[in-house]
Amino acid sequence: MKYRVTLFNLMVVVLASFVVGCGTQRGAYKASVDYAIVDGVIILDEPQRGPEQQSMIEFRAEPLDVVRVGFVGLGMRGPGAVERFTYIEGVAINALCDKYAERAERCQEYLTRAGMPAAKVYSGDEGYKALCESDDIDLVYIATPWQLHVDVAVYAMEHGKHVAIEVPSANTVEECWRLVDAAERNRVHCTILENCCYDHFELTTLNMAQQGLFGEIIHAEGAYIHNLEPYWEHYADNWRLEYNQANNGDIYATHGIGPNCQALNIHRGDRLDYLVAMSTRSINGAKLTKELMGADECKQGDQINTLIRTVNGCTIDMQHNVMTPRPYSRMYQLVGTEGYANKYPVQGYTFKLDQLRSVDKSAVPDIEDLNHHTFAPKEVVEAMTEKYKHPVQRQLVNGIPLQEYSLSIGGHGGMDFIMDYRLVYCLRNGLPLDMDVYDAAEWSSMGELTRISIENGSKPVKVPDFTRGDWNRVDGLTFYFAE
Amino acid sequence: MKYRVTLFNLMVVVLASFVVGCGTQRGAYKASVDYAIVDGVIILDEPQRGPEQQSMIEFRAEPLDVVRVGFVGLGMRGPGAVERFTYIEGVAINALCDKYAERAERCQEYLTRAGMPAAKVYSGDEGYKALCESDDIDLVYIATPWQLHVDVAVYAMEHGKHVAIEVPSANTVEECWRLVDAAERNRVHCTILENCCYDHFELTTLNMAQQGLFGEIIHAEGAYIHNLEPYWEHYADNWRLEYNQANNGDIYATHGIGPNCQALNIHRGDRLDYLVAMSTRSINGAKLTKELMGADECKQGDQINTLIRTVNGCTIDMQHNVMTPRPYSRMYQLVGTEGYANKYPVQGYTFKLDQLRSVDKSAVPDIEDLNHHTFAPKEVVEAMTEKYKHPVQRQLVNGIPLQEYSLSIGGHGGMDFIMDYRLVYCLRNGLPLDMDVYDAAEWSSMGELTRISIENGSKPVKVPDFTRGDWNRVDGLTFYFAE
Repeated sequence: MKYRVTLFNLMVVVLASFVVGCGTQRGAYKASVDYAIVDGVIILDEPQRGPEQQSMIEFRAEPLDVVRVGFVGLGMRGPGAVERFTYIEGVAINALCDKYAERAERCQEYLTRAGMPAAKVYSGDEGYKALCESDDIDLVYIATPWQLHVDVAVYAMEHGKHVAIEVPSANTVEECWRLVDAAERNRVHCTILENCCYDHFELTTLNMAQQGLFGEIIHAEGAYIHNLEPYWEHYADNWRLEYNQANNGDIYATHGIGPNCQALNIHRGDRLDYLVAMSTRSINGAKLTKELMGADECKQGDQINTLIRTVNGCTIDMQHNVMTPRPYSRMYQLVGTEGYANKYPVQGYTFKLDQLRSVDKSAVPDIEDLNHHTFAPKEVVEAMTEKYKHPVQRQLVNGIPLQEYSLSIGGHGGMDFIMDYRLVYCLRNGLPLDMDVYDAAEWSSMGELTRISIENGSKPVKVPDFTRGDWNRVDGLTFYFAE
Repeated sequence: MKYRVTLFNLMVVVLASFVVGCGTQRGAYKASVDYAIVDGVIILDEPQRGPEQQSMIEFRAEPLDVVRVGFVGLGMRGPGAVERFTYIEGVAINALCDKYAERAERCQEYLTRAGMPAAKVYSGDEGYKALCESDDIDLVYIATPWQLHVDVAVYAMEHGKHVAIEVPSANTVEECWRLVDAAERNRVHCTILENCCYDHFELTTLNMAQQGLFGEIIHAEGAYIHNLEPYWEHYADNWRLEYNQANNGDIYATHGIGPNCQALNIHRGDRLDYLVAMSTRSINGAKLTKELMGADECKQGDQINTLIRTVNGCTIDMQHNVMTPRPYSRMYQLVGTEGYANKYPVQGYTFKLDQLRSVDKSAVPDIEDLNHHTFAPKEVVEAMTEKYKHPVQRQLVNGIPLQEYSLSIGGHGGMDFIMDYRLVYCLRNGLPLDMDVYDAAEWSSMGELTRISIENGSKPVKVPDFTRGDWNRVDGLTFYFAE
């Protein structure tokens, strides 16, 4: 049952992210940056940090007693966010913005229901500008179509607003740099709304990783594998298929790579060094785009495969496939020197024997037979899952642990609410956010970097260091709590 | 229960393949061939076909009424093969050879038990030569340590014998070419003993693939993931660990790539074009080799990842990991435009709805809910598995289907017996073998090709065309049967 719920919810995310695309900029992105091929390795130009910019590593803004939010993009994904925010203490929803006024107006209902005052409505193609210029907003929450993410976010940051952006937060490497530069220049938070980092299995597993249960993690996997065949017709004006038709590469990588990078402490002691990507030819995609768009070719292969290596010698295996019949999977997997975690198609862990024994001796049948070859028994996993619940899952909201509380609100089984709650909590307490602008840039850059590798016969592509040398300043990822 | 049996058996394979290595040639292989890096792509020198050589595609030898076998290498894996052969009709076991005479002698017991006459025993470092020179042998079955495979095989072929070689059949690309050239020059069979191609799930799935149930297969996966931590000490003279210490790359790829290449019709309509490989650093390997060998470094990374692309635009994802605690997995997976098969950690299929209905309408509950997003229900899979059993599984032995018969003999749940049976059957009937010398070369070449890619920062490496242009002469893989 749980699986079905997750499946359905993820479907909604996808629909939500794309259906509002009608009437906006369409089609392919050109290569956004120049690159050189040096000794067979593709190296992108990296802009220098301007003199007025400062590193955003561990950035803390002034605490906000009340976080005054403006929502931009209220097609499919936005309204759910508005509703969730009405359940968070210390929030004032001051602005609702969509290209179409009626979509923004419709969201007033959530405020009324929650006994909150009506918000100001902004609309039209440039409605977001007035919202960003207003002085009663601290945070701009962006759930527009992909192509507008960066324009809205940069405008908001230039006007001193913190921003939270749906996934992927940027479409090209050049757009990633624009986010980084705007955050560094204006000293405001720019976070990515990567909800999969807050799913229960991922959070608990991350905590196990941070507690050393897997030893050193040497390999991780992540994917977006979701057969969209039954849903293409629901994307307004065929927006999603057009994007696939026009762009090869892993264009929707953040659900997979986000939790991987957190477990590997990327730009908190390690760094993505280079990647190679490989695409199958397009068969189902070509058939679909021919039928629905009359297109002569579909640029995106039916499946995209990527390998990434970090500076510390870890690897990541990523996949993207929205074209063929396969069970839904984000392929989440951690391979450590002393343990292993796997989420799809069945959740399971492998631990060292002494770790199993430390939990519950009696719960481990035939322990000598395990030999680290199989998944730990169900009873052990249940005990370990309880013992190693992430502090974020245990964080109290009105006396109820956040994980439990989130289940009553919903949004992908609660993970959306946990994400929103953490964002508001950190802003109110002047803490660094769980995911910063470098995460947003690193994770979102995969789309274009993989495309470049594929277009060059899978040649290695160096991943830009969006921290500009600061990737090793912090030792490990911290989720902050107020004391 | 089945899983445990498989696991245990696979463990035995590994032990078997390596434990006889004591006292033989050790350590690292040098790059065996010259290569050039052209525009960032690594291209190996490929020897031309000699005037006295002919293509072995679909090669048929004279039918043999009785197949007279000589076994070379009777340490761990060999004796089981001798025993299995006593259950196959039309076989004469005429020779037993091992470096150590007592190991060869010990195998006479299987012959006695089966009421067969004693075989001639050969021993010593060059005992195999006399065996190969003898005129009462048709087939030399080679289960020596890896390093001796090619020397024995080539010597046997030069003396007109067919050969069957354990995995990997060759250690370097140069050795692969030696196998190809010797087979082409002497017009004898050279097959690889890749037992995983005969496992029940793989055979049935291959048949489903050939019947079109998955549409066009665009992606496949295969691996050797087996934590050998509890077993290192059992390898005589630390043979296995020394090999890992001295060689990076996917050195044990054939269990994974064999079934993939069969499903993708490699050199029967498609061809491996190029690969990229990526290794993690060595942590557990370095610790082990330090402790057990006093080594300063371990060349092989704890996990090796490889992506391969075919000329027809399909991809293969491969992994190798014998160093960290993970559940056993060969990662066998086929991704097709109309269906999906997955073996680890749970077996499952995804099919198009009309295919499900064709099997058994009533067995498909809530079929409209499936949406190709989940595995097909258990009842459907059982019905499909029965319906699509591979002709090899149904082939009659003494009136009993081969699959059923093989279960009573054993050897990895029967797959070893099916492999041996098919080899003898095809030789007796003058049929092309299921796996030819090009399979042996392609699958075995992965070790060195991946090493070269890794040593060059994951640059793409062109896979040699061991058929020298004949990869497209045959349309699809055929398992032959006598009429």
